[in-house]
Amino acid sequence: MHTTVAIVGGGPAGLLLSRLLHRAGVDSVVLERRDRAYVEGRQRAGVLEQSTVDALREAGAAERLDRQGLAHDGVELRWAGRSHRVDFPSLTGGRRVWVYAQTEVVKDLIALQTAAGAAPYFDAEVRAIEHIDTDRPTVRYLHQGQEKVLTCGYVVGCDGHHGVARTALPRGVRRTHERVHPYSWFGVMADVPPSCDELVYAHSPRGFALLSMRSPEVSRLYFQVPNGTDPADWSDERIWDELDARSALDGRTLTRGPITSRSVLPLRSSVTEPMRHGRLFLAGDAAHIVPPTGAKGLNLAVSDVVVLARALTHRQRTGDTALLDAYSDTCLRRVWRTEHFSSFMTTTLHTGPGQSEFDTRLQISQLDRIAASPHAAAELALNYVGLPLP
Amino acid sequence: MHTTVAIVGGGPAGLLLSRLLHRAGVDSVVLERRDRAYVEGRQRAGVLEQSTVDALREAGAAERLDRQGLAHDGVELRWAGRSHRVDFPSLTGGRRVWVYAQTEVVKDLIALQTAAGAAPYFDAEVRAIEHIDTDRPTVRYLHQGQEKVLTCGYVVGCDGHHGVARTALPRGVRRTHERVHPYSWFGVMADVPPSCDELVYAHSPRGFALLSMRSPEVSRLYFQVPNGTDPADWSDERIWDELDARSALDGRTLTRGPITSRSVLPLRSSVTEPMRHGRLFLAGDAAHIVPPTGAKGLNLAVSDVVVLARALTHRQRTGDTALLDAYSDTCLRRVWRTEHFSSFMTTTLHTGPGQSEFDTRLQISQLDRIAASPHAAAELALNYVGLPLP
Repeated sequence: MHTTVAIVGGGPAGLLLSRLLHRAGVDSVVLERRDRAYVEGRQRAGVLEQSTVDALREAGAAERLDRQGLAHDGVELRWAGRSHRVDFPSLTGGRRVWVYAQTEVVKDLIALQTAAGAAPYFDAEVRAIEHIDTDRPTVRYLHQGQEKVLTCGYVVGCDGHHGVARTALPRGVRRTHERVHPYSWFGVMADVPPSCDELVYAHSPRGFALLSMRSPEVSRLYFQVPNGTDPADWSDERIWDELDARSALDGRTLTRGPITSRSVLPLRSSVTEPMRHGRLFLAGDAAHIVPPTGAKGLNLAVSDVVVLARALTHRQRTGDTALLDAYSDTCLRRVWRTEHFSSFMTTTLHTGPGQSEFDTRLQISQLDRIAASPHAAAELALNYVGLPLP
Repeated sequence: MHTTVAIVGGGPAGLLLSRLLHRAGVDSVVLERRDRAYVEGRQRAGVLEQSTVDALREAGAAERLDRQGLAHDGVELRWAGRSHRVDFPSLTGGRRVWVYAQTEVVKDLIALQTAAGAAPYFDAEVRAIEHIDTDRPTVRYLHQGQEKVLTCGYVVGCDGHHGVARTALPRGVRRTHERVHPYSWFGVMADVPPSCDELVYAHSPRGFALLSMRSPEVSRLYFQVPNGTDPADWSDERIWDELDARSALDGRTLTRGPITSRSVLPLRSSVTEPMRHGRLFLAGDAAHIVPPTGAKGLNLAVSDVVVLARALTHRQRTGDTALLDAYSDTCLRRVWRTEHFSSFMTTTLHTGPGQSEFDTRLQISQLDRIAASPHAAAELALNYVGLPLP
């Protein structure tokens, strides 16, 4: 089998890339290791930046998002008994974010591509990416028990941090910079309408908490825990008590409901450079991981594939490789900006183990400043809704 | 001897407080441990915020400053082969800073108070501050070999971090929060016109450097060194080479000249709370230390004494103690804001021992952002020129 662009990984990055290429007349094949039901059931992020929504609209993939997505015009910060709402449209020239689960984006893209006769290959496990230094790379994969070979013009790795693509960057070329944060997120899904209309980011002496939602009926809640925490050690009551203790204001408490899922997620920052070598390109988690505090993981993946789809389309139409050659540098500027913002949000809101009172006061002073200074608030808002695509 | 306000310490904070009180008709006595020549020769900070200059003008102590001070409308940042000028007036509504050495401020204030018949007592070493819980505190001090007692209505400690006043706060009341930074500044004075018109803050793989000046003829230069560095280990040539290696841009190098003084200064952040107990008030370094990267130490001291002079004057005129009662809270908000800004400048520009490449990239992304975002630049500028006095 041959295609112009072989895409390894059928998460939102790979699927959107395939969709954007399809609409531009560039053929591609998506190889996804898991089956369709698994891919459509993965719970991940849920906040879409303005430019992510713009990209999905441009891909013709926003019909359901525009009906069901919840537009959010701000977030609320809570700390030291105070609260402050950061208003996005007034601080960013009209930009906002949408709450719409990543898993719904994935379902929409799979349905569209399937209807267009360009469905991803599920249960297709990539074993090797080879010959990336030639103009005819190959991808070897297992499908229905048989080893197969896909030849292509370009390979794009959208298969995450532990995927095949990242390690297919030659050892002498690849550099990975990372930081493991000294805390994790305990995340729960609960069948109860969210107690707050907007996302609430809470700093507290007990640690960080985030009140979020997936829909008007489903709450998505997170709180900081030590690394290595076992979710089974926490009763539902203890979880709700802890969320209340960290986020309560003026005696208001959260409306409780059945907790339907729970998991503990370690926080990691990671960047692999360069994002391109020869005919191999990395996009999304294959190239970078951000801690979830800034809600950036999915959005950064979308930004990569928008840049890459444009470059591949330009190459096919004109023969010019300038945009492909610039891909890594173009993306990495935004990647590091986003790593910085995600680290800023994380270190401002979390309580590190053994954190001194001095450090806590600096966090409070930073949060006070966001409440007092339109410039500090605008910096948060602009980064949160997402900087314009490169 | 009796006075309304006993001021312990004849540095800029104590002297300016005494001057402001004198002009408001409130009598005070300044007790300074060292002799006049020593006090007038101490080399310290050299950048005055807009509101510090305003306060000195209001005290009638800015006549020479207005003639000889160098108004600065910006600073230059250098990092990763790039540079960016932060323009103060356009980002702050017309505010700026002045280069005028602290030691000159001290000389001006001593001369004025001496001429007014309210000279500080030099060689007056305070041994104890007592009875601060009564309305008649006492200060015991040694002067010309004799132990003397000054009774007063209020005592103000302007005698620095290691002074008597800070430890006169009762043990059960006093809380000190601090951080020692893992690097020091090597500072030199050189008899050579500054190579740049404005201050240059340089981030480099070799560590931080600051190009500054004291006058059109004298350069003041700093660079980050490991804690415990012995200044005697560095030849003049090695110092200039190191400054060039950290700050050079486009092949331009510094004009070299005779180095007339050198010292190594550890970087410390510290806040003591509360800043008032009973009839004892702390101001300046007695209550807080900031690392010098934001040029804030002297300015924060001035802000304390402006607030305190206003409160003491209000008390004398009306009998109302509300402003005195609010002094600690009023000052601490600005103190923590300033500690945060000074830490931000320090951690953004210095290279920590064992710093990872990931951390370095975040620093570079932060500096890139200041160059790209007017909001990020305005936050730096507003904090640097000094927020309006409370």
